[in-house]
Amino acid sequence: MSIPTISWVNGNVKIIDQTKLPNKLQYITCRDVKTLWHAIARLSVRGAPALGASAAFGVLLSFKTFKGKTRRAFDRHIIKACAYIGRSRPTAVNLFNALSSMQKVLTDYPLASIKEIKFALKHEAFRIFDDDKKVCRMMGKHGAKLIRNKDNVLTICNAGALATVDYGTALGVFYSAKAQGKKFKVYACETRPLLQGARLTAWELTRAKIDTTLICDSMAAVTMRQKNIKAVFTGADRIAANGDSANKIGTYSLAVLAKHHRIPFYIVAPYSTFDLKTVDGKGIPIEERNKEEVRKFAGTATAPKNVKVFNPAFDVTDNKLITAIITERGIIYPPFTKNIKKTFQRH
Amino acid sequence: MSIPTISWVNGNVKIIDQTKLPNKLQYITCRDVKTLWHAIARLSVRGAPALGASAAFGVLLSFKTFKGKTRRAFDRHIIKACAYIGRSRPTAVNLFNALSSMQKVLTDYPLASIKEIKFALKHEAFRIFDDDKKVCRMMGKHGAKLIRNKDNVLTICNAGALATVDYGTALGVFYSAKAQGKKFKVYACETRPLLQGARLTAWELTRAKIDTTLICDSMAAVTMRQKNIKAVFTGADRIAANGDSANKIGTYSLAVLAKHHRIPFYIVAPYSTFDLKTVDGKGIPIEERNKEEVRKFAGTATAPKNVKVFNPAFDVTDNKLITAIITERGIIYPPFTKNIKKTFQRH
Repeated sequence: MSIPTISWVNGNVKIIDQTKLPNKLQYITCRDVKTLWHAIARLSVRGAPALGASAAFGVLLSFKTFKGKTRRAFDRHIIKACAYIGRSRPTAVNLFNALSSMQKVLTDYPLASIKEIKFALKHEAFRIFDDDKKVCRMMGKHGAKLIRNKDNVLTICNAGALATVDYGTALGVFYSAKAQGKKFKVYACETRPLLQGARLTAWELTRAKIDTTLICDSMAAVTMRQKNIKAVFTGADRIAANGDSANKIGTYSLAVLAKHHRIPFYIVAPYSTFDLKTVDGKGIPIEERNKEEVRKFAGTATAPKNVKVFNPAFDVTDNKLITAIITERGIIYPPFTKNIKKTFQRH
Repeated sequence: MSIPTISWVNGNVKIIDQTKLPNKLQYITCRDVKTLWHAIARLSVRGAPALGASAAFGVLLSFKTFKGKTRRAFDRHIIKACAYIGRSRPTAVNLFNALSSMQKVLTDYPLASIKEIKFALKHEAFRIFDDDKKVCRMMGKHGAKLIRNKDNVLTICNAGALATVDYGTALGVFYSAKAQGKKFKVYACETRPLLQGARLTAWELTRAKIDTTLICDSMAAVTMRQKNIKAVFTGADRIAANGDSANKIGTYSLAVLAKHHRIPFYIVAPYSTFDLKTVDGKGIPIEERNKEEVRKFAGTATAPKNVKVFNPAFDVTDNKLITAIITERGIIYPPFTKNIKKTFQRH
C-alpha cells in the first residue's frame, strides 16, 4: 500500500478525500485548521489512528494564524486550536491522545522560545505520524499468527491503510499474513450508512490482490454459518480500561454473532486507542450523525422524508465478547482489566 | 391501509410498482404473463403472500394466449404457464402453493368444459386473493395480544400491506395493535441491499401514523440493547415442517441477536407459507440475486467494479431461535415439529 492516506507537504496537510472513493482517487490540501476540521467532520479523513496523526498536523497548521509575540500567547493559541480540533469528532480517542501529547510539549518546555517550541511541536507531530507506521506493522506481525493458510476471515468498516497513516490495523494483519505467503479469503461487510467497507476496504484489499468478497452487513450471520469463517478482525476507536471497545456501528452485532457461531473475535488497535481513564464502555461518548445519512444515498431519497432515524456512528462491544486485543506490543487476552493494566505498567 | 397492492381490473393485474416507492406511488398494469413475470423478478411486486395472489392472477392472464380448442390443450397451456411463473422467484413457497391450488382445479374437474374450467380457475384465484385479506386480519388479531402498551418492537424488510394483498403479516400485527388503541414504537431495519424497510415499511407505517424509527441493519444489536426492544416480528417466505423459517436476508441475524438480548422473536405467516414436504431449513432453496444490487446504489457505484459479492436474498432462521409462529389460526409454540403437524391435522 504505497499511497499514504495523510502526508505533510510544503507546510500543508495533504489527505486522500475518502468520500470520493472508490470512483476517484482525489486529494485535499488543507492549508488551515478549519479546512482540516471540516475534512474530519465529513469523513474525508477517518479511522482512529489517522485522526490522531491528522490532529497532530492540525496543531502545526494553527501556527500560521498566530499573530502574538509571547510564549504565553502562543500557548493559549495552541490550546485553543486543540480544543477546536477536539470538537470535530467525539469517539476516537486517538484524536484526543494526539492532542494531549501535543499540549504536553508546551508544559514540558515552559522556558523554550516560540521558535524552539514550534520545533518541538513539529517533532512531536512527526513522532506520532512515524509511530503510526511502525506500530501498524508490528500489530500486523502479531495478528498474522492468528491467520492460517486457507482461512476465511471477516471484517467491517475500514481498519486499513486508509484508516491509518499507511498500513492499517485489522487490514494490516491481512497485509502481513499475505506477505508471509498465506492464502486466505476476506469477507468485507459493506458498513452502512457510509459504506466504508464497500468503498474503502474492498478498494484497498482488491488493489493489494487479497481475495475479497463484499457482503451487506445483514449477511454476516449467514456468511459465518455457511462460509466457514475462522475469525473476525476489526479495528477500534476507543478501548476502555476493562477492554470494552467502541468501533464502527455493527461491530457489536458481529461480536454477538461470532460468539453464537463460536468464532474468535479480535480487536486490532494500537496503544493510542486505549483510554485507561474510562473504566468501561458506558463512559465512551458515541457520536450520533446526521439522519440524512440513513434517509438518503448519493442524493437519492431512500426513505420517507420525515421518518425518524436512529444513527449512532459507533457501538460498544463488551469485553466478554472479545477473544483478544492485538496491539503493537503483543496480544492481550482476558481477563482484560488485569492484563491491560499489566501491559501498560510494563512499558 | 386502503391502497391495494394487487388488484384485478378489467381482466388485467394492476400492481403498485414498489421499486418506485417511497418517491412515487405508481402502478403497473400487467396485461400478459410475461409482464407479470418481470414485475415479480425485479421486485415491483414482492412479499410471500402477495406473490401467491399474483401467481394465481398470472394463471388467469394466460387464458388470453390460449389458441387451442380442447380441454387437454387447455390444461397443457395452464400447466406450462404455471411452470413459467414458478421460475420467477424460487424461495417464497406461497407462489408454488398458489400455483398448485390452481392446477388442482384442473384435476378436480376433469370433465368440465373450457368455459367451465376457466370459471373455476377464476373462482380459485379470487379465493386465494380474498383469503389473503381475511387471513392477514386474523394473524393481526392473534399477534396483537403479544404487544403491550408502550412496547418498543423491531422488524425487518416489509411484511406489510405491500407484501400481501392489502394488510400485512408482521405489520398486520402492528395495525391490529394500533386499532386496539395500544401505543408502541416500531424500529424498522432498512434491509439492504434493496431497502424494503426504508422504502416500503417506513412509508406504510408513517402513512398509518405508527411511531416509526428507521435504522440501518447493523444498528439492530445496539437498538435491542439500548432501546428496550420487547419483541421482534418478521414475516416468512417459507416455513419447513420443523419450523425453520426462510425470510429476507438479515432475519437470521436478528434472531441470534434477539436470543442474546433475551427478546422474543416471532414469525408472522399464514398457512400458505408452510411447506410441510420440506423437513427442515436445509431443503429450502435460497435465491442469490445480481451482484450489482450490492455493488451499486441508486445507479451510483459504491464498490470497486469487479469485487466479488455474496448476495443471498434470504436466510434461514432455525426453529430453536423462534419463540412462536403467529398464523391465522392461532399462535404455534415449540416443539414446532409436533405442534405444526398437530395444527395442520386439526384443520
